[in-house]
Amino acid sequence: MKRTMYCGEVRPLHEQETVTVKGWVQKRRDLGGMIFVDLRDREGVVQVVFNGEISEEALNKAEKIRSEYIISVTGKVVLRSQGQINKDLSTGDVEIVADSIEILSESKTPVFDISDAVEVSNDLRLKYRYLDLKRPRMQANMKLRHAVKKSFRDFLDDQGFLDIETPYLTKSTPEGARDYLVPSRMSQGKFFALPQSPQLFKQLLMSSGFDKYYQIVRCFRDEDLRGDRQPEFTQVDIETSFTDKEDIQSTMENLLVKLVKDVKGIDINSPFPRLTFKEAMERFGSDKPDLRFDMELVDLKEVALSSSFKVFSSAVESGGMVKGLAVKGAADQFSRKKIDALESIAKIYGAKGLAWMKVTEEGLTGPIARFFSDEGAQSALLDQMDAEAGDLLLFVADKDKVVYDSLGALRSHLGKALDLIDTSKLAFAWIVEWPLLEYDEEEGRYNAAHHPFTRPVEEDIPLLKTAPEKAMADAYDIVLNGYEIGGGSIRIHQRALQEDMFTALGFTKEEAQNQFDFLLDALDYGFPPHGGIAFGLDRLVMILADEENIREVIAFPKNGKAVDPLTNAPSPVAQAQLDELKLALQSIEKTEE
Amino acid sequence: MKRTMYCGEVRPLHEQETVTVKGWVQKRRDLGGMIFVDLRDREGVVQVVFNGEISEEALNKAEKIRSEYIISVTGKVVLRSQGQINKDLSTGDVEIVADSIEILSESKTPVFDISDAVEVSNDLRLKYRYLDLKRPRMQANMKLRHAVKKSFRDFLDDQGFLDIETPYLTKSTPEGARDYLVPSRMSQGKFFALPQSPQLFKQLLMSSGFDKYYQIVRCFRDEDLRGDRQPEFTQVDIETSFTDKEDIQSTMENLLVKLVKDVKGIDINSPFPRLTFKEAMERFGSDKPDLRFDMELVDLKEVALSSSFKVFSSAVESGGMVKGLAVKGAADQFSRKKIDALESIAKIYGAKGLAWMKVTEEGLTGPIARFFSDEGAQSALLDQMDAEAGDLLLFVADKDKVVYDSLGALRSHLGKALDLIDTSKLAFAWIVEWPLLEYDEEEGRYNAAHHPFTRPVEEDIPLLKTAPEKAMADAYDIVLNGYEIGGGSIRIHQRALQEDMFTALGFTKEEAQNQFDFLLDALDYGFPPHGGIAFGLDRLVMILADEENIREVIAFPKNGKAVDPLTNAPSPVAQAQLDELKLALQSIEKTEE
Repeated sequence: MKRTMYCGEVRPLHEQETVTVKGWVQKRRDLGGMIFVDLRDREGVVQVVFNGEISEEALNKAEKIRSEYIISVTGKVVLRSQGQINKDLSTGDVEIVADSIEILSESKTPVFDISDAVEVSNDLRLKYRYLDLKRPRMQANMKLRHAVKKSFRDFLDDQGFLDIETPYLTKSTPEGARDYLVPSRMSQGKFFALPQSPQLFKQLLMSSGFDKYYQIVRCFRDEDLRGDRQPEFTQVDIETSFTDKEDIQSTMENLLVKLVKDVKGIDINSPFPRLTFKEAMERFGSDKPDLRFDMELVDLKEVALSSSFKVFSSAVESGGMVKGLAVKGAADQFSRKKIDALESIAKIYGAKGLAWMKVTEEGLTGPIARFFSDEGAQSALLDQMDAEAGDLLLFVADKDKVVYDSLGALRSHLGKALDLIDTSKLAFAWIVEWPLLEYDEEEGRYNAAHHPFTRPVEEDIPLLKTAPEKAMADAYDIVLNGYEIGGGSIRIHQRALQEDMFTALGFTKEEAQNQFDFLLDALDYGFPPHGGIAFGLDRLVMILADEENIREVIAFPKNGKAVDPLTNAPSPVAQAQLDELKLALQSIEKTEE
Repeated sequence: MKRTMYCGEVRPLHEQETVTVKGWVQKRRDLGGMIFVDLRDREGVVQVVFNGEISEEALNKAEKIRSEYIISVTGKVVLRSQGQINKDLSTGDVEIVADSIEILSESKTPVFDISDAVEVSNDLRLKYRYLDLKRPRMQANMKLRHAVKKSFRDFLDDQGFLDIETPYLTKSTPEGARDYLVPSRMSQGKFFALPQSPQLFKQLLMSSGFDKYYQIVRCFRDEDLRGDRQPEFTQVDIETSFTDKEDIQSTMENLLVKLVKDVKGIDINSPFPRLTFKEAMERFGSDKPDLRFDMELVDLKEVALSSSFKVFSSAVESGGMVKGLAVKGAADQFSRKKIDALESIAKIYGAKGLAWMKVTEEGLTGPIARFFSDEGAQSALLDQMDAEAGDLLLFVADKDKVVYDSLGALRSHLGKALDLIDTSKLAFAWIVEWPLLEYDEEEGRYNAAHHPFTRPVEEDIPLLKTAPEKAMADAYDIVLNGYEIGGGSIRIHQRALQEDMFTALGFTKEEAQNQFDFLLDALDYGFPPHGGIAFGLDRLVMILADEENIREVIAFPKNGKAVDPLTNAPSPVAQAQLDELKLALQSIEKTEE
């Protein structure tokens, strides 16, 4: 029998129709003479009734089925009686009275229940990913991911962008993160690298005149993994010619407004707020601020300088800063112990300590309150922080970076802990006016803050030869709910400027030529002004799916050790395979299987 | 100035409008006081006129421009006078009289002309791929590729298929072609493999209940390269559950009918012809026959057995065959020398020789004609081959495979050489009823003809335990104009059957478990009946673009040595990178840079 509809699609309008559904046995209740089965497919669950009075044969067969058996059922759709209606089910008004059943596949008892309610360890979920993916949550996440990609493509296709594929077997570049290498058999001793992004290829496509490019493309970084990192991740990669920052931003806003409407049914407003990098750091202590709640950082330079509290005044005097957070109405909720917990968060980011006070009707309390007992100092502080009785005040005094990072982290933590976040909101924003370079303390030299092909803003181009560390980049990141979901820039399209950039990054002329000869050559033959952006698809879908880890929106992810517990990849290979590649293993400690 | 339209879009309806176009200087003619520029962008070419009487400044600037400079021009659209109309250009009725010009980028003189007319060596084209891609032919090919992908996606999205991504860093399997390996840094001494196809992952997605899956996905094979092979290639990968061969075939026919209409504007008929593998070999000597022309192979068993020509009769008697081709009306075109050339083609495929005769009004001529001088033998032969005066008759007598391969190759060659092919045709066909196994002469064992997960046809399942070499597969390839453009099958969805298949392929139980433990485990938890297909996107686009090599439809392909002359990938890497991977190079002969 052919399937006539999905389980999840049966509705009262199908009453008295004979239908055939196929799916997985979610639940089976044997009431003696009658068996009820919840039958599941990707569109939902429908109740099937086996009744000996309708078909003895079907009932007998139904006795054999167990959870996760796959069956085909043909029967009549009937309305449930009033008391039997299940409002939790989209099919809850009806059931199928089975005329016949075919068992298509049996199943062992699953290692874990196919239900969102069950908590299972991550490695078990990944080892049995095919079971895990049956869960409604994962089914919904994969469907959402599909819908997001479709929305991206529909918009970009409509706007004349061309989907052009770039190579996965390409050249290793020392810039940025570590490459995954692929040994070549036909050129022994040489290696391809898997791309960290198709950056240079998409720029070359602009020089070739394709004008508007996009690609939903896998990228690879062999880095130590953090919460939302994976060795391979998916990027929506976009580039356009004869364009500027405003053009790209407004096109992307239109794209995202439509996307959010398409996949979530939510209307969001554009243009999105634009914050400079400096403003984002000063107000939120983060270059990817979560704008769903306030609680901004307050600068206390004046208060600190005029205060008798040495920790504050000396921080400012030695070139650092003092900033505070007023946690509205939270004074009562924070015991000494809880404040210590906040302090240990601040310390992760290098803060030597977390100063605090509480505002009471009687004035300030807490260990440093005595430094602000003076009426003037106290009211200046309260004024500055817009604080009132009941507020908890937190302070960090240190070098700029430490103050931003630690208070930024505290702000995020408190936003979640105190439930300050309107989780129904999608707060997009652009972060603009980035520094072109950033100092790498370890290497003692400047790196490109975005990448070496980012163009300085027009007025800072002369700085590239004189004081490149002061130049600002024509770059823009896009953030959503505290995550960076994309980043882009206008690119360098002249050879001389690109050479100056390489020089600013400490490359000798020879090194630049060795690494980027094909780009420099290509620049000789002319590039249009161009720029683009790349979205992290996994992260965007994660946020839209209300998940905390990109693993939840990737069908077959790796675990925290970059291993796939399902296939056991990576795995040892035969010596013959290594011999063909003229490779040998250096002696290594025995690794467990 | 913002671009108001593409160069290739200017039309008479824009007369008197002031427009801004941006593009590449295709040609510049200086007539003294007036300069004519052909300005090119991805949509076409428009003529721009710089006239000192309109703008002296623009004319002066225009004097500086050379081929491939990138400029922005603002000016008024005017109709060309009758004599100046250029019918070869979509914009040939108009020109733009420039008010102003801005030079956006200069260019060295390109290594080769940006024109389809110029012949350039392949390696030069690939080294300067960014120039090569500017050519109208390559621009059109990339646009066609985009349109083909879009048509695939639109159809599959509409039909409820979900685009789900599978891993690129996955497990090495010894089955099929050689894998590209990726050493793991975090699991030293172990390797990922790049996928040859997402076969097992898409099957797992069916077990998870996603029901309909697709993905346009890169695949990798480290094989020695032939004409239309690349180390990385793109597959349109499709899988569905609760389905059968006919369902999949008719869905794919609907897809392709729409696709051909979308991208070529051509109506093709469905259902496509279905040929069994056996019939394809017998009639066309090929499992991917070009059905755009006739000239079928003729079986001459009876004629051979009754003939006095020992070569013929003994071939049949020793279990081989004799087949012939009647090349209609071609007798006069084939000198002895030309026939020798045909023979050398046959010999490539193992034929010991190529027998031939010509049919004249007076009867048969040629070296073996005397064996058919008997009236009866002669008319039996002519009858069998439907031959008449003026025809050239070609024969191969040998083992079946040699006869099929050599005559199949001759048929293809003659189809092209004699211009028998209606190149406006798109001749799709299904090749069905494939053997499940094929004997590997080198290894002395059976391999899966498609892959080890292909289901035998229902009635042959018992054969798997008794005579697996006789079993037929529930598999189907799709061919177009003599190329295989896709292949698929119904898959095995029961563990016991999959184990029998592994046994038939010579795996011990342990080897099967080691290699495919996760599949066998997953089969324990139930799979729906499922099947699918994968299309070779590169090859399909190549055929639709009327190209001879998939390189022409891939933006950045590798050359015949699996090298990218543009980036020089693969390339040597630093010892530090190898050390991190605990890898060493075996000593190898010095390879040239």
